[in-house]
Amino acid sequence: MSKLRFNITMTLDGYNGGPKQSLDQPLGERAERLHDWAIKVKTFHEMHGEPGGERGPNDDVLRQTFDNIGATIMGRNMFGGGPGPWREPPWQGWWGENPPYHTPVFILTHHPRDPLVMQGDTTFHFVTDGIESALAQARQAAAGKDVALIGGARAAQQYLAAGLVDEIELHLVPMLLGAGERLFDNAGLDLKLEPIRVIDTPEVTHLKYRIVK
Amino acid sequence: MSKLRFNITMTLDGYNGGPKQSLDQPLGERAERLHDWAIKVKTFHEMHGEPGGERGPNDDVLRQTFDNIGATIMGRNMFGGGPGPWREPPWQGWWGENPPYHTPVFILTHHPRDPLVMQGDTTFHFVTDGIESALAQARQAAAGKDVALIGGARAAQQYLAAGLVDEIELHLVPMLLGAGERLFDNAGLDLKLEPIRVIDTPEVTHLKYRIVK
Repeated sequence: MSKLRFNITMTLDGYNGGPKQSLDQPLGERAERLHDWAIKVKTFHEMHGEPGGERGPNDDVLRQTFDNIGATIMGRNMFGGGPGPWREPPWQGWWGENPPYHTPVFILTHHPRDPLVMQGDTTFHFVTDGIESALAQARQAAAGKDVALIGGARAAQQYLAAGLVDEIELHLVPMLLGAGERLFDNAGLDLKLEPIRVIDTPEVTHLKYRIVK
Repeated sequence: MSKLRFNITMTLDGYNGGPKQSLDQPLGERAERLHDWAIKVKTFHEMHGEPGGERGPNDDVLRQTFDNIGATIMGRNMFGGGPGPWREPPWQGWWGENPPYHTPVFILTHHPRDPLVMQGDTTFHFVTDGIESALAQARQAAAGKDVALIGGARAAQQYLAAGLVDEIELHLVPMLLGAGERLFDNAGLDLKLEPIRVIDTPEVTHLKYRIVK
């Protein structure tokens, strides 16, 4: 059965982004250290076409988030930021000419747009009729493989509140943000989670949960 | 060197108590499941003079929170609840005639009161001149052993913000509360934490951090 798997980096006080997020500072203030654990590992380097990067448990965890993934879902801000209609000339998002997804990617948005075919088997599809439609399209594209939900928080909250997520992996970073975007706000309170795996490193603790339906 | 060790149970969304806390419902609404992991283990049963209780990793973790502890610090609400002066006849707190601490206990309060000697080597001392005074008195009483800081959140936040805590152990319960008392609010943002141990069980994940000074 194809699963919807969500993974995200979160601080110990529950934030996945700082305050004052903007196009220039997409993670918000004080949050630049949030993804340090990922940025230095080999899988991340490969995702961005760069040599090098560390091996080890953090690399293994990041690599596994892509295992058996046949399609990807993300929110509009994670594709390219900004609340308005698409910028001209047509903006191709943060992710470069060869985005690191290598699957069809379904983007939740209010602004229709034709699919955008990128290098490396990534095609961005813009879905304007809601989260269930995006999930149905992603499942069909995944052809039996799992679907990755990769954020941001608002997209994830909608899927969590609707009871559609099968697995959550939190990369829990031992820092506090104190303000910003809080992952579990508006995610519904009736989530039943069962820990299925913990991997701890000095930089981050990876907590994987199954959502009990 | 005597350490100040803080341990507390927290939900995945960062709460250590629900909304609408009261004398009748000291953990607040929806929070009754928060301490299920602890209530069923042998150490907890022993603390309350009861037979039975489960053994296993959750029991080991709870027992270890008492290892090498020579004195205890808690907030006024954790002793006995309520913001006002002491109730008459003199209220002896939630903890029964033989409280589970078996050390001197220093209670942060604005209301002076003579020490209260209980059975089993627990004496409650009421400290009205602030957190540093309470810590100094606790260290002296501990005579080289560690000091346990056991909550509630407001007492802990003051010690965290003042940089006085050496170790935190979070018992992370896979549930959401969505409202209530949030542990890391007002705890300062410059805490530097280093994971030193993780123990995972189906009910709760125990995350121990050293605070880097």
